[in-house]
Amino acid sequence: MDEQRAARYTVDLNCDIGESFGIYRIPGEEALLELATSANVACGFHAGDPGVMRRTVRLCLDKGIAIGAHPGFPDREGFGRRELAVTPEEAYELTLYQLGALGAFLRAEGGTMRHVKPHGALYHLASRSLAHAEAVSEAVLRYDASLVIVGPAGSRLLEAGAARGLRVAREAFADRSYEPDGGLTPRGIPGAVLHDPAAVAAQLMRLLAEGVVRSASGGDVRLGVPDTVCLHGDTAGPMIGELRRLVSEAGIELRAIFHFV
Amino acid sequence: MDEQRAARYTVDLNCDIGESFGIYRIPGEEALLELATSANVACGFHAGDPGVMRRTVRLCLDKGIAIGAHPGFPDREGFGRRELAVTPEEAYELTLYQLGALGAFLRAEGGTMRHVKPHGALYHLASRSLAHAEAVSEAVLRYDASLVIVGPAGSRLLEAGAARGLRVAREAFADRSYEPDGGLTPRGIPGAVLHDPAAVAAQLMRLLAEGVVRSASGGDVRLGVPDTVCLHGDTAGPMIGELRRLVSEAGIELRAIFHFV
Amino acid sequence: MDEQRAARYTVDLNCDIGESFGIYRIPGEEALLELATSANVACGFHAGDPGVMRRTVRLCLDKGIAIGAHPGFPDREGFGRRELAVTPEEAYELTLYQLGALGAFLRAEGGTMRHVKPHGALYHLASRSLAHAEAVSEAVLRYDASLVIVGPAGSRLLEAGAARGLRVAREAFADRSYEPDGGLTPRGIPGAVLHDPAAVAAQLMRLLAEGVVRSASGGDVRLGVPDTVCLHGDTAGPMIGELRRLVSEAGIELRAIFHFV
Amino acid sequence: MDEQRAARYTVDLNCDIGESFGIYRIPGEEALLELATSANVACGFHAGDPGVMRRTVRLCLDKGIAIGAHPGFPDREGFGRRELAVTPEEAYELTLYQLGALGAFLRAEGGTMRHVKPHGALYHLASRSLAHAEAVSEAVLRYDASLVIVGPAGSRLLEAGAARGLRVAREAFADRSYEPDGGLTPRGIPGAVLHDPAAVAAQLMRLLAEGVVRSASGGDVRLGVPDTVCLHGDTAGPMIGELRRLVSEAGIELRAIFHFV
Repeated sequence: MDEQRAARYTVDLNCDIGESFGIYRIPGEEALLELATSANVACGFHAGDPGVMRRTVRLCLDKGIAIGAHPGFPDREGFGRRELAVTPEEAYELTLYQLGALGAFLRAEGGTMRHVKPHGALYHLASRSLAHAEAVSEAVLRYDASLVIVGPAGSRLLEAGAARGLRVAREAFADRSYEPDGGLTPRGIPGAVLHDPAAVAAQLMRLLAEGVVRSASGGDVRLGVPDTVCLHGDTAGPMIGELRRLVSEAGIELRAIFHFV
Repeated sequence: MDEQRAARYTVDLNCDIGESFGIYRIPGEEALLELATSANVACGFHAGDPGVMRRTVRLCLDKGIAIGAHPGFPDREGFGRRELAVTPEEAYELTLYQLGALGAFLRAEGGTMRHVKPHGALYHLASRSLAHAEAVSEAVLRYDASLVIVGPAGSRLLEAGAARGLRVAREAFADRSYEPDGGLTPRGIPGAVLHDPAAVAAQLMRLLAEGVVRSASGGDVRLGVPDTVCLHGDTAGPMIGELRRLVSEAGIELRAIFHFV
Repeated sequence: MDEQRAARYTVDLNCDIGESFGIYRIPGEEALLELATSANVACGFHAGDPGVMRRTVRLCLDKGIAIGAHPGFPDREGFGRRELAVTPEEAYELTLYQLGALGAFLRAEGGTMRHVKPHGALYHLASRSLAHAEAVSEAVLRYDASLVIVGPAGSRLLEAGAARGLRVAREAFADRSYEPDGGLTPRGIPGAVLHDPAAVAAQLMRLLAEGVVRSASGGDVRLGVPDTVCLHGDTAGPMIGELRRLVSEAGIELRAIFHFV
Repeated sequence: MDEQRAARYTVDLNCDIGESFGIYRIPGEEALLELATSANVACGFHAGDPGVMRRTVRLCLDKGIAIGAHPGFPDREGFGRRELAVTPEEAYELTLYQLGALGAFLRAEGGTMRHVKPHGALYHLASRSLAHAEAVSEAVLRYDASLVIVGPAGSRLLEAGAARGLRVAREAFADRSYEPDGGLTPRGIPGAVLHDPAAVAAQLMRLLAEGVVRSASGGDVRLGVPDTVCLHGDTAGPMIGELRRLVSEAGIELRAIFHFV
């Protein structure tokens, strides 16, 4: 395959942010804002709180980074990573609630919400279950039809969003291991998260160039070139400068998702 | 004093609503909507949840009742009635968060938020502490400068709201006992809540006609004629028809606050 | 089959109790205590709070009803009925925590905990998943090896409890519909809960006499005669006197589980 | 005054621990366990969760450190530092609940609870309000009459505990600034927490030798020689070795409170 032709010349790098809570701080969040073009802000259910949200929105606006909502399950203890068997109706309601809560801080600070990316177990549920994907998409649509929905390529979430006329962005992860079927290796399985900076950089660059990752079992998995790649503070944080250099040398332009999907 | 001249010809009757939570139901809420012109909808911190909020907003819109936010302390166990020593900054943040959350349901259902009335201990704190009153008012202002703030006549809350150019509505209670200084008799003190329907009706009518209530210790207390009177489901619910008749016979017009303050 | 020989002469009737929370009251709970011999007390995660727990323990002790713990998922909004994907380790920890919390009220009031019955989605998870059944059983064992575990006949929960030397009690429901495979019809499916008092009474008596229920699809399902039958306040509450008469006429003795399993 | 005679030859050093929550980690906690003789374990209301509690109890048992309960207000967002206007009855109930919850982990791991030290705003409330002090003490008494209550010298808490026949331990802080009246400088006021290791060490040693601290306004404050001194991970953690040396050189023996009060 001709790498040159597959390469994306515009991509978004997104990061989850605002995940501190009370006295608890998530270290390394800010480092990502030196590279990311879109930030997914926790909305107080799985992480974040009203004070963290206010400061995070302000920080992103000051840095010119596009802000999106990152709604999750109401489970701070499990950080929204444990699936909760909500009905589609409940998924609609909890998504809408969180969009509004974050939107208030944007309104107060003079900013605009640009995208929505469900968090953790809600992301996975809405990627897999059409009824929940429709519920989340409907909440986004009713809240603001100009928002972009972020989810895995080929997911129910993007399918349901697109069916409603919403713009959708295909996401891949630079620091997560993939299964042969294109799904993420579940957290809790050893190797699910890549911790080696070199491996993260390599996966990012191959995603951008070819839309391919190496799977946990060794073979290549074709995901397609993503619209946005998710970076995490603990893995990408310490190598932001290096990632920036690699992206720049590859001739890739970084822009917030809402500009180009 | 000439009762005729003191009488208000337009007043709002407001009720707290949407205070169910999960499987827990607050009975009698809907009865109030047969008389009230404004509804204060709980926002999920002291009561309510995303599903209750959605259904409550829909119900009020269907009945043509003006919807306001009823933000409270994050204390479901205490129903927002226990003061929590938040900083003014925290009061700002938790108010803004809740305005946004409720606002999302209004947006999704095609309605408009009209007013804000803090709940319980937050209401009392913002009535008494200027710094907290300013914080709550600032949250309201930044969220939507067209909102009306509801609070006790002469309170710091209305003072801070007016100082920011917000419209304010002076509230009194039909079913609460007052102290000689014009403050509410604190809950927990016997007699703080009037349970006798006749007494509730009498206090309502005297408030509207004269702006006066009889205090817990027996003397009259001049509060001034209120812009809005709060009714509760457990006390006023069973006598809605009677209250409507009394108000009508007195030539008083009921209108939602946002129309006339 | 000879009904006479299958009949149980000793059985326990259990009820879930202490499910109020803050200002929210579950009506009808107390009526059940006129008939039940064992009470499962909510422990503050899915329902109940420290004040409710104290009063409920006191009430049960005053009425001479055996007290058990009713631990559930930390999900008040969903009343512990929504499955939360906890690890077995987390199931162990949240069960142990709740046993201790309830145990403190028993200790303070001079009572003794007698049994443990997981609530809602935790009950179903521990009935189905051996790893979670082992985790819950292990928590019970380590907290107090004299406790009885209550679960469905043939469940993983009773299997894991028995494997640890714990006493186990087979439970059936008087007011729930069963599937042909012996499982409960999931809540949310119409007909899952029997609301007709006559049907509840009939199911109870047939369970005690034959160990059989009529399934949702019409045929009989053999569950085996249970050690304990669960009653709920909303269905059995209004017909306590009638149930008592039926049980008495059938020559069935009611005793708390811990006396006889 | 003769320093020699005032010196304590036996003292306890206590630390708050188990304050992580979900994915959130409090760094530096473990370092304190190299020096502390008593550990106050958070019970899941202001900090901690069932998993953190299990691991913390295990860790303390492995290190031979005496374990106490550290109950707080149900306010994770404010880390239990914001006063919540609970009634004495509620203070009793929430304390008892938390003692039981922690006690279950001790029972499961084969340990014994030794003391109780209320956390944050509950500590201050119970130090100041006799009714709340009595409520907390009553919860401790009813849970386990052999427990030691830890509080400030001269506080209502120790008064109420002693009145019930409980053993009490007078506590002072090595890293907190004191007011001339002997109270702690409230958090939020600059200088309330000493961050200079040398200052922390100096305050500790002078407390042990003379029972005196230098107040925020410069003068000496006589607190009396404490039974136990509280260390925090962020201030004392990095200088554990130095503190140990100072204490040893002063001929002071470190023992867990329950051995000697």
